[in-house]
Amino acid sequence: MKLPQGFISGATSAGLKSNKNLDITLIQNLGPNFDCAAVFTSNKVVAAPVIWSKQIAASGVAKAIVLNSGGANACTGPQGFADTHQTAEFVADQLQISSSDVLVCSTGLIGELLPMEKVLKGISYIANHMDDDGLKESAQAIMTTDSVPKIVELESDGVSFAAIAKGAGMLAPALATMLSVVMTDATVSSKAQEIFEEVTDRTFNRMDSDGCTSTNDTVVLMSSGASGISISDEKLREMLTQVCSNLVSQLIADAEGSSKTVAIVVKNADSEKDAVDIARACARNNLLKAAIFGGDPNWGRVLAAVGTASAKMDPLTIDVSLNGIQVCRNSAPEQDKSAVSFADRLVRIEIDMKVGSSTATVLTNDLTHAYVHENSAYST
Amino acid sequence: MKLPQGFISGATSAGLKSNKNLDITLIQNLGPNFDCAAVFTSNKVVAAPVIWSKQIAASGVAKAIVLNSGGANACTGPQGFADTHQTAEFVADQLQISSSDVLVCSTGLIGELLPMEKVLKGISYIANHMDDDGLKESAQAIMTTDSVPKIVELESDGVSFAAIAKGAGMLAPALATMLSVVMTDATVSSKAQEIFEEVTDRTFNRMDSDGCTSTNDTVVLMSSGASGISISDEKLREMLTQVCSNLVSQLIADAEGSSKTVAIVVKNADSEKDAVDIARACARNNLLKAAIFGGDPNWGRVLAAVGTASAKMDPLTIDVSLNGIQVCRNSAPEQDKSAVSFADRLVRIEIDMKVGSSTATVLTNDLTHAYVHENSAYST
Repeated sequence: MKLPQGFISGATSAGLKSNKNLDITLIQNLGPNFDCAAVFTSNKVVAAPVIWSKQIAASGVAKAIVLNSGGANACTGPQGFADTHQTAEFVADQLQISSSDVLVCSTGLIGELLPMEKVLKGISYIANHMDDDGLKESAQAIMTTDSVPKIVELESDGVSFAAIAKGAGMLAPALATMLSVVMTDATVSSKAQEIFEEVTDRTFNRMDSDGCTSTNDTVVLMSSGASGISISDEKLREMLTQVCSNLVSQLIADAEGSSKTVAIVVKNADSEKDAVDIARACARNNLLKAAIFGGDPNWGRVLAAVGTASAKMDPLTIDVSLNGIQVCRNSAPEQDKSAVSFADRLVRIEIDMKVGSSTATVLTNDLTHAYVHENSAYST
Repeated sequence: MKLPQGFISGATSAGLKSNKNLDITLIQNLGPNFDCAAVFTSNKVVAAPVIWSKQIAASGVAKAIVLNSGGANACTGPQGFADTHQTAEFVADQLQISSSDVLVCSTGLIGELLPMEKVLKGISYIANHMDDDGLKESAQAIMTTDSVPKIVELESDGVSFAAIAKGAGMLAPALATMLSVVMTDATVSSKAQEIFEEVTDRTFNRMDSDGCTSTNDTVVLMSSGASGISISDEKLREMLTQVCSNLVSQLIADAEGSSKTVAIVVKNADSEKDAVDIARACARNNLLKAAIFGGDPNWGRVLAAVGTASAKMDPLTIDVSLNGIQVCRNSAPEQDKSAVSFADRLVRIEIDMKVGSSTATVLTNDLTHAYVHENSAYST
């Protein structure tokens, strides 16, 4: 699968994973533009590559990004940071660019140093085998417990976007979660960072699989301008929203251990922030999520979760629908809950707050035996 | 088991539960004092009995409390409130007191009306069969998925305390969780409410089994003064702390579906509030809790959870010990984590923040298959 114009990439199996799968990838932007935007985890405890990449991305310029699975390089102390630094220097050396233009991302177990000899050997190999056709291999190289690579390609009016992602909302936890790289050959304005933040806030940040925030989450936008076409901020926002929403759908559908995708739609809240708060309170409620796993239309747990949000509400006038059946009106029973069907993977919980006109949707998963199994057995 | 002087009680099986177990209890304070203090759930969505009892308790006086299991009377609309009101009026009538002196508590499924005929018949029976010897039966009558009744008796310097409790931190969730009544024959000062809030904040509020806040949580203190002995505020604080800490230990040990009790001890935080925030962030982290279930000394998940707290921290200087093994020093690996033993039910996670001198401990449980099973199957 092709990268957008101006980009080349490569991937290899450097032996960071116990299986022989691809585990390291390098993507280079050949320009003429080298614009980048980035959003990082809100966790205060961040991995060495996040500390590094934040500094690089702050300049708004990046020429290459190297990503590895098989180790998060998080909670690894000064040696971990030195390793990230060395990785960036090595990439810069191989590609004859400056290390201050090299982003680094890692994903895998927390608390263990990377086998640097293998990392550098892998990078050295890739640097001599890069082409414009390796989108899928790059996506594969960042997979951890993902069962499929997550890829989006989008073309419109002569410009191309391509994106890869792995993980999802601390699904496969100590794994340092969610990494994503979005590439475009469009020329974008200096507002790209602002727009990227807006879009990720309404896409990636509204996916909340298990409420846990990783140490390594990184989402990067790189634009080469190689198409020769400038796009408006509005167009950029539109295309990024399509790309990121699509990635989010893929991530949540592949969430480790999940049997249901749950869309929590909050309507008529006092503000968008309130709507998100309420939806997130539901997305993080283990009781509600276990009930959904059990196919139990226990709407009382929806209200109990809503009531823990800090949002403005009238606790006596909330309506709840489960998969189209209005089981609760004015915070009391309405239609017979036994009419609710949980046959599909998608479960839609609609909550009408009736205190304003703002809406937001948060996507989450159910809480399953497989989730407990996966996350109790992962590192051992 | 005897109640403190000045109290009588009774319990019966009114048929609210599907089994024949005790499901309703009535406790009367015969005075000479009728002081009460109370703390309720922080959930904005509260059950009808919480709305009622908040009003009653605000006066600082209560002469009786009626509690039922088998139904939470939460999210039941105007009829649910009318039922609570009728219950209080009926108790008042039976005991020849005012309904404005009658507290009401309910626990069980959310979203269903109580079978009022059975409730009133049960109360009528109890009102004619009350004595000073029914502490255990009262504790049994409020059990839901509890496997044992929770009871504390404490005597010191001529005064007695006795207390009952059920549930624990939304363990058995739609169940409306945690109810507790603490009785004493001591005479207490007008500061009892303030002291009770302080003590519950440091005991009940530091138990966080699954992060979910119920619609019905109620903790009540009633004092009769029948011992004829006044106790100092300091003595009251001491005895209440003993009683409530003991109840908390019993509740967390009996948490539905748990295989481990986890004490999260945060040391050297910037403030007690910060210490609690950090401990609670860990107590609510599904990944960490699943790891503990798996006996996996995955300290990276401790740091990842700590980093999500809003507390002041230096992310690079945090120490973590698991059951006495210092697995992490300055946010990097220290002692070999394979030395950590998870043989005991109690797991102690000690987190040294090194930014201040405040300490707090939050108790929680592991996240288990049994928890998922219990909470996915409960209402169906």
